[in-house]
Amino acid sequence: MLQLRADVTPQQIKDVESAIRELGLRSQLVIGETAATLQVIGDETDKDLHVLAGMQGVEKVTPVNAPYKLVSRRLHPEYGLNGHTKVVNVAGVEIGGTSLVVMGGPCAVYNRQQVLETARAAKEAGARIMRGGAYKPRSSPHSFQGLGKAGLEMLMEAKQETGLPVVTEVLDPRHVELVAQYADMFQIGTRNAQNFELLREVGRSRMPVLLKRGFAATLEEWLCAAEYIASEGNMNIVLCERGMKTPFQSSENGRFNFDIQAIPAVKALTYLPVIADPSHSTGKRALVTPIALAAVAAGTHGLILDIRREADGPIIEYVKDGVAMKTAYCDYEQALTPKELETLAVAAKAVHTAMHTPV
Amino acid sequence: MLQLRADVTPQQIKDVESAIRELGLRSQLVIGETAATLQVIGDETDKDLHVLAGMQGVEKVTPVNAPYKLVSRRLHPEYGLNGHTKVVNVAGVEIGGTSLVVMGGPCAVYNRQQVLETARAAKEAGARIMRGGAYKPRSSPHSFQGLGKAGLEMLMEAKQETGLPVVTEVLDPRHVELVAQYADMFQIGTRNAQNFELLREVGRSRMPVLLKRGFAATLEEWLCAAEYIASEGNMNIVLCERGMKTPFQSSENGRFNFDIQAIPAVKALTYLPVIADPSHSTGKRALVTPIALAAVAAGTHGLILDIRREADGPIIEYVKDGVAMKTAYCDYEQALTPKELETLAVAAKAVHTAMHTPV
Amino acid sequence: MLQLRADVTPQQIKDVESAIRELGLRSQLVIGETAATLQVIGDETDKDLHVLAGMQGVEKVTPVNAPYKLVSRRLHPEYGLNGHTKVVNVAGVEIGGTSLVVMGGPCAVYNRQQVLETARAAKEAGARIMRGGAYKPRSSPHSFQGLGKAGLEMLMEAKQETGLPVVTEVLDPRHVELVAQYADMFQIGTRNAQNFELLREVGRSRMPVLLKRGFAATLEEWLCAAEYIASEGNMNIVLCERGMKTPFQSSENGRFNFDIQAIPAVKALTYLPVIADPSHSTGKRALVTPIALAAVAAGTHGLILDIRREADGPIIEYVKDGVAMKTAYCDYEQALTPKELETLAVAAKAVHTAMHTPV
Amino acid sequence: MLQLRADVTPQQIKDVESAIRELGLRSQLVIGETAATLQVIGDETDKDLHVLAGMQGVEKVTPVNAPYKLVSRRLHPEYGLNGHTKVVNVAGVEIGGTSLVVMGGPCAVYNRQQVLETARAAKEAGARIMRGGAYKPRSSPHSFQGLGKAGLEMLMEAKQETGLPVVTEVLDPRHVELVAQYADMFQIGTRNAQNFELLREVGRSRMPVLLKRGFAATLEEWLCAAEYIASEGNMNIVLCERGMKTPFQSSENGRFNFDIQAIPAVKALTYLPVIADPSHSTGKRALVTPIALAAVAAGTHGLILDIRREADGPIIEYVKDGVAMKTAYCDYEQALTPKELETLAVAAKAVHTAMHTPV
Repeated sequence: MLQLRADVTPQQIKDVESAIRELGLRSQLVIGETAATLQVIGDETDKDLHVLAGMQGVEKVTPVNAPYKLVSRRLHPEYGLNGHTKVVNVAGVEIGGTSLVVMGGPCAVYNRQQVLETARAAKEAGARIMRGGAYKPRSSPHSFQGLGKAGLEMLMEAKQETGLPVVTEVLDPRHVELVAQYADMFQIGTRNAQNFELLREVGRSRMPVLLKRGFAATLEEWLCAAEYIASEGNMNIVLCERGMKTPFQSSENGRFNFDIQAIPAVKALTYLPVIADPSHSTGKRALVTPIALAAVAAGTHGLILDIRREADGPIIEYVKDGVAMKTAYCDYEQALTPKELETLAVAAKAVHTAMHTPV
Repeated sequence: MLQLRADVTPQQIKDVESAIRELGLRSQLVIGETAATLQVIGDETDKDLHVLAGMQGVEKVTPVNAPYKLVSRRLHPEYGLNGHTKVVNVAGVEIGGTSLVVMGGPCAVYNRQQVLETARAAKEAGARIMRGGAYKPRSSPHSFQGLGKAGLEMLMEAKQETGLPVVTEVLDPRHVELVAQYADMFQIGTRNAQNFELLREVGRSRMPVLLKRGFAATLEEWLCAAEYIASEGNMNIVLCERGMKTPFQSSENGRFNFDIQAIPAVKALTYLPVIADPSHSTGKRALVTPIALAAVAAGTHGLILDIRREADGPIIEYVKDGVAMKTAYCDYEQALTPKELETLAVAAKAVHTAMHTPV
Repeated sequence: MLQLRADVTPQQIKDVESAIRELGLRSQLVIGETAATLQVIGDETDKDLHVLAGMQGVEKVTPVNAPYKLVSRRLHPEYGLNGHTKVVNVAGVEIGGTSLVVMGGPCAVYNRQQVLETARAAKEAGARIMRGGAYKPRSSPHSFQGLGKAGLEMLMEAKQETGLPVVTEVLDPRHVELVAQYADMFQIGTRNAQNFELLREVGRSRMPVLLKRGFAATLEEWLCAAEYIASEGNMNIVLCERGMKTPFQSSENGRFNFDIQAIPAVKALTYLPVIADPSHSTGKRALVTPIALAAVAAGTHGLILDIRREADGPIIEYVKDGVAMKTAYCDYEQALTPKELETLAVAAKAVHTAMHTPV
Repeated sequence: MLQLRADVTPQQIKDVESAIRELGLRSQLVIGETAATLQVIGDETDKDLHVLAGMQGVEKVTPVNAPYKLVSRRLHPEYGLNGHTKVVNVAGVEIGGTSLVVMGGPCAVYNRQQVLETARAAKEAGARIMRGGAYKPRSSPHSFQGLGKAGLEMLMEAKQETGLPVVTEVLDPRHVELVAQYADMFQIGTRNAQNFELLREVGRSRMPVLLKRGFAATLEEWLCAAEYIASEGNMNIVLCERGMKTPFQSSENGRFNFDIQAIPAVKALTYLPVIADPSHSTGKRALVTPIALAAVAAGTHGLILDIRREADGPIIEYVKDGVAMKTAYCDYEQALTPKELETLAVAAKAVHTAMHTPV
């Protein structure tokens, strides 16, 4: 980390960046409220950064040997040790700080009517960002894999009607450009938590990224995934806890175990905002609401929830290559109805208010 | 399960119990609000309980093949499917229903002054039951093992002064009788979650039992442990979630991972009340308060917290066999100061109120 | 699954394939020793495959609802229930059946001399396939990421000199074509165990694939990953167990826990061969040899091992963009010296012989 | 740790022991081949053991701050760093060193005929120690709990007939004295891995103890459990790996995951012998043999296996309080038939020989 002088000039910065490149490293300029720093990207082993200390515009050189630097709270004192977070702006909706953002929508996009109706219902029930999957990472290749571009178009239509920004998953670095044309926020799913090439590719965009924690990722591995995105220049990252794979999953206790400790723990390690997905962690409607409220009490900045229409049953229709198909509604058991979402949103607000009311 | 007729006589019950014994089984009478049942204890394999259907006083015979029956919500319709819980009375303090009980005290008892001062402080900060360990199960035999009977006497003195009922751990079936003379509630610790002989022994008492979940126990294994207590006739059981051993423990994320889903999930399976121990799950002061509040939002009936005096340092004194000793304060990193407990208690009450206020 | 008649004609097969496509599904022809089948790929929900039963050339239609079909032993009776495996040919080296193949090489490729010398040493010590990483998936973006194409060229040179076929990791679907020009076998690493787009892309090649088990993958998830490759037509798959993430990792017990049960268990579920990677599971030289021998005794078809030169130290040199760099030798602690590999290979052969000698 | 002088007198030892007691600590005399040491038991925090350095007979004082000392290889250089183990003598059968001991018998004792016949068959098939449970720790109180004393008598009869020493589980510190009258080796089961009062009680005996690893115990926790036994003076301890609870248990992959790495890893930490239980880890007959052979290849000193009679079905008869009962045969799915045990024993010997034949 190179702290720059208050009167550093653009040319001086260029010279320092160039000197860093000559060492085989890269750098990223971070302009804070009171000062600017150059964070060094790459392996500092055997590099003596102190040779840069004499360069014009350089205030101080601090070699940092850490797996993540750009997203570290400790290395960004401008956010304070337990304090403020970055606020990520998703097409006008702000995530971070002291607000609580509810996101909702269908797990997967199947047909135009389903998406439009679910989006309207989600909005009415209090959601401010719409979720929906056009590319679906399914354990088996024999399961429904999403509608791809056709699904993105349906999401776009729902967005134009409701005004809700859209978050949708991207699975393949080759799809990043296309998805960026339709969505307002990339989602990186739990199965791609260490798909580093994909992380790099969304890092080359400037569109916000919702980064789910790998279901078997430690906090450090999660933050390193964020660091991959940041190392390409995209700092618009929102973390999302979505449950761990443990020996204690069961039909009663859910598909995964929501790691409630991760919320305060990761907030102490990074200044990025963190939201909670109680739908995919629990996999079970009856558990979604209590876990959502618990996440609010633990300090989450938002909730992302699977929603389905009241009338949806476990089988749903879609069209693929012109053929009418039916398939099992993905993650049906965990989707809330709009009415349930509304009740949850009201309760979440009450808990959030109780948390932020001075005594 | 044998449902008894409304006009069943004591003699008829005795006759049925005797017939059950002749089958090599035992039974337990449960008198509900509207009816009485005899739950069959033991292995029903190859037993035709229907032979009892013709006996006087028997309304209906329903063979049940389940690992736990006595503590099952499904088999106790008097509590409703998602509804009421048993209320367990601990020397006047009621746990269960819609109240929220805060328990606090030192992890371990070291000396008279420490116990008295911590108890007073805990009471002032809002605790209604005092915790404190006289027998300590430590991973290593070289660690401080507790003061035993001398510690129980100190707890008794603190109880007499403050009026707070005492919950304390019992480790050995041979100590149950002694501990019962001093305490108001047994604690069964996580390491004894499948110490079936100890569970049976506290089941033979009628004193309430705080049953911690094993750190590697499924919900079913936890409820089977409760069933061991119940099968000896003691139904005064309070469950306590205290964290799972997962691959995701770390110095940042805590010693164990609090299983927030367990709270609503176990409440659907049993009518017993369930409380939360955020101190031992997190092992870290900074995580205790957010996890405690999350547990309240998820529906816990109580909190149990490690407290230490403001001035306590990481080393503390005690006397053993007349020799003055010093030792590391057990679980020092996770103990709240009285001031922190007070802040937590106020916030917990606010969240609890938000949860129970109709909208 | 459609069993075809013995006298089915190519045109009849085409007609059936076309009819399957009209149902919105795909198919794959599998020609066994005594008969041919068409396996249906895709979601059979709501599809009545029996309409195909009347078509010419179709012997029998059996709808199959399973997460994996193409790689399932149960659905491929030609391999027998506990019996034979597919033999995968890697540039002349056969994996599967009753042989035991040792693969070895450096974890990562750093420079020409290192690769050549390690390859020679590995060959002399008994390795028949060379491993080596040109693209390295590292938890942190600040760690050495591999030499990419330059590394592939070094591997090619080592192959030309030693005659050993090369297995190397591919991380990005966009690199598949390039890697195929240099390597004889793709490696899919544990972090990409559910990178479905990458799996599909190597499935479109016909080059053999070494598919590592995800460190948090169940056997079913692992076989579903293989199914993604197979569903694109590439059946040349070798599975590789490489350790689970559990709560019991420790500096003494290794970075991951090798799942010895997975070897016989997965062999009962699939006819694909399965090899063992004791280097990455244990992360520790002292554990590599006993775990390798255990894997042989449990029935593995091969071993893949990290090797380094005798003289290699924990820091190694490479050149990046013309700049001379030094970095920590990746996974240094787990790499065997050639001498250790030789001793292991001899012991492995002795155990393998003992296993296959009739008593 | 106090190293004593070669010419230390019994009176001098007594004096030193007494001085240690005055510090509030205890000690244990260990007489090695070339020297004697006093290991200090208890919490050394704040104790200056160097005050003992001047006492007569004391060669050197080395304060040790470790969770386990008595069973540590590092603190017992007489066994060498990777070398020899203690040999534990179980009524004439030696466990440890380079031999491989097979133990077998029924999971639970149900009736006289079953025990006698299974014992005879186990002996013929190659077992040298007989296992069998008279006290059974079952998850549910409604399951068969063992015959207790009557079961011990049946085991005694089988031992008298076959000459095989008996290992049997003890669950309750109050049963230790009784069990010692019938058995030759205590078994501490996985559920009592941290039942410290029970560990202490078998430590007060001098009968050998088979200490199973807790299914959620780290290596350190396992060795601390051994240390509890040792700290009461009983050094006749044999460790037994029996499978971990992980997220990867499945009907195919077994009830638990055998930790093959634990065998070489724990042998590096302690000089105690370590055996393997593939029956309870896998819970599945088809996996028992490959895992047993793998354990031998990894360096285990013995195997303990569940055996049943050829003709045994999943339901078996017993008599309780004079009533004829039937129950599910405990762990039926994992029990080998005598013929299977024989095949396994021959293969195990072949692997063991291959391991110990110099090349």
